[in-house]
Amino acid sequence: MASLGSMAPPLAPMTRVIVPINHCNACGARVEYKVPAGDTHSRAVCPACGHIQYQNPKVVVGSVPVWEDRILLCRRAIEPRHGMWTLPAGFMENSETATEGAAREALEEANARIEVEQLYTLFSVPHISQVYVIFRARLLDLDFSPGEESLEVKLVREDEVPWEELAFASVRRTLTHFFEDRRTGVFLPRFGEVRPPDR
Amino acid sequence: MASLGSMAPPLAPMTRVIVPINHCNACGARVEYKVPAGDTHSRAVCPACGHIQYQNPKVVVGSVPVWEDRILLCRRAIEPRHGMWTLPAGFMENSETATEGAAREALEEANARIEVEQLYTLFSVPHISQVYVIFRARLLDLDFSPGEESLEVKLVREDEVPWEELAFASVRRTLTHFFEDRRTGVFLPRFGEVRPPDR
Repeated sequence: MASLGSMAPPLAPMTRVIVPINHCNACGARVEYKVPAGDTHSRAVCPACGHIQYQNPKVVVGSVPVWEDRILLCRRAIEPRHGMWTLPAGFMENSETATEGAAREALEEANARIEVEQLYTLFSVPHISQVYVIFRARLLDLDFSPGEESLEVKLVREDEVPWEELAFASVRRTLTHFFEDRRTGVFLPRFGEVRPPDR
Repeated sequence: MASLGSMAPPLAPMTRVIVPINHCNACGARVEYKVPAGDTHSRAVCPACGHIQYQNPKVVVGSVPVWEDRILLCRRAIEPRHGMWTLPAGFMENSETATEGAAREALEEANARIEVEQLYTLFSVPHISQVYVIFRARLLDLDFSPGEESLEVKLVREDEVPWEELAFASVRRTLTHFFEDRRTGVFLPRFGEVRPPDR
């Protein structure tokens, strides 16, 4: 059998699309869309086995890894936003905590070890049903390098941030808040939303 | 056809179980579990159409609705934790923001109108692949009443909180932090994790 890779190239985490549910993932029958009794939203309901398949927003977890007066940025080797800069972040996985996910992403994307310090920003991106959760973190050592999904990884000072080449609005806004708050020394939690055409 | 309600009683949001994926939700073929090229985790991969079905943690969004020196609690009319007290919270839906979800849950569970003020706590519950995100909020008026999922809704002062009858660890810890922080006047963002036997 041909490897799946040759049939359908794997999508990078942030390009995973919301696929309409056609079939029941428990028994394989074709689903119907209806509002189940006691529910308020239309769901994919299986007329054969009764299974309800829910779709909910996905969490993207990441960090602002800090080393002295610099932060760690990654240049993306994957779509979307190939070649643009971002904080280490990616989809949270089942069975992990948000901070474990943030540390895993720093390791995968930048071969970087971090210690999460504080919850910092939460941005909802409702048109793609995602929630970005970004922590402030301490970069533990300087032994970092590009992971498979990164072209380049580097520490930057505030005046070195490539503002026009940042991949995502939630990253841009997190960094804007970060440098503002660093000046006052008080890091307030921040939340908000990203609307089209931003993402 | 019998209504689905008579075949499979709808599950309350927090009782939704993590169901193993047997069939492709795009084409209905039986899936295989494998690590796709470029990925680090085992996924449900369809050998027929190539679709990869990801499973990720679900976000529970809620609020601490505040009215003067009191907060709003709901007594659960549903499992799990039927009869126990909680903050208004529930699964975030696709296409909404986290704060819209928190406001919707206050309305559904307590017929209460809130204004979200600040991001407050984030608790990961990895053994059930959930993330609780709780905001501080202002209750806008006193015209609240039990929604379908609540037996009772009331405003309580700190010394009236039924600590031994709180439904979830993330709620108990959020309230503990809330009253501590209210004494100092400084509400710090909080994050952590809940492990078995707690949930």
